[in-house]
Amino acid sequence: MKVLGIDPGTAACGYGIIQADGGRLAALEHGWWRSSAREAPELRLKRIHDGVTGLIADHRPDAVALEESYVGADARIALSVGQARGAVLVACASAELSCAEYPPATVKQAVCGYGRADKVQVQRMVATILALDVAICHILAAPLARAVAAGAAR
Amino acid sequence: MKVLGIDPGTAACGYGIIQADGGRLAALEHGWWRSSAREAPELRLKRIHDGVTGLIADHRPDAVALEESYVGADARIALSVGQARGAVLVACASAELSCAEYPPATVKQAVCGYGRADKVQVQRMVATILALDVAICHILAAPLARAVAAGAAR
Repeated sequence: MKVLGIDPGTAACGYGIIQADGGRLAALEHGWWRSSAREAPELRLKRIHDGVTGLIADHRPDAVALEESYVGADARIALSVGQARGAVLVACASAELSCAEYPPATVKQAVCGYGRADKVQVQRMVATILALDVAICHILAAPLARAVAAGAAR
Repeated sequence: MKVLGIDPGTAACGYGIIQADGGRLAALEHGWWRSSAREAPELRLKRIHDGVTGLIADHRPDAVALEESYVGADARIALSVGQARGAVLVACASAELSCAEYPPATVKQAVCGYGRADKVQVQRMVATILALDVAICHILAAPLARAVAAGAAR
């Protein structure tokens, strides 16, 4: 099973691809797309969309997992994060891949065994690799939990 | 000049296309895409993305205008509106069209001559046609105001 994990954001959108063979997990590729606030938003979003499309074409993952975006009190930030998520989700749907969504605590629980792990603990566990934790979470999740997460993204 | 106006939303995303010949405005097409909350979000967003892509291919507009989304206190609604905006903006950027963005008051001022016009007044002015008002606003805007609006979308 191969999973593409994405942490959506407009300024920086991180991704990681995890391959699971039996009980063994391997990171295939990871990175991020960055853009400047001085660029037109549609061009920044296109870069994310085309980046996801390219990753899917190169790696042919079986599933895509997103971390549920934390939406604080600031609706303007939520709108911006939403736009990045829209670019990612369109790319997945165009490739006929469904997206599962996990709350941050579930990701931390799966990766660190502790839902309130701090950033440093998570980083240690995923060896400073961006976004791979969500993909790992999706692979470690029991089939039932995966179905629930895919439902939650609806 | 031909302008595609879009009022982004996930449940209902409205659009209208206005053609300006000299001082004459004509509505070429209008409508909306609707989807149910029971569908996967990536499929709902793909429908919006593919709809915008199809409209652009059919009508070849010179510009796209969006109404600045009102983001109230609810960050979850803002996230959802943002996702729909992301799907629209990716479609525009893929067609190499830039997007101008206008605040609701500017749209009302341009269409009704009164920035605080209510919904019924706006509807009367655009003959109950959805989303055409933003396109009309973009056509009526002076070239300088258009440049400013295109800048505001950055």
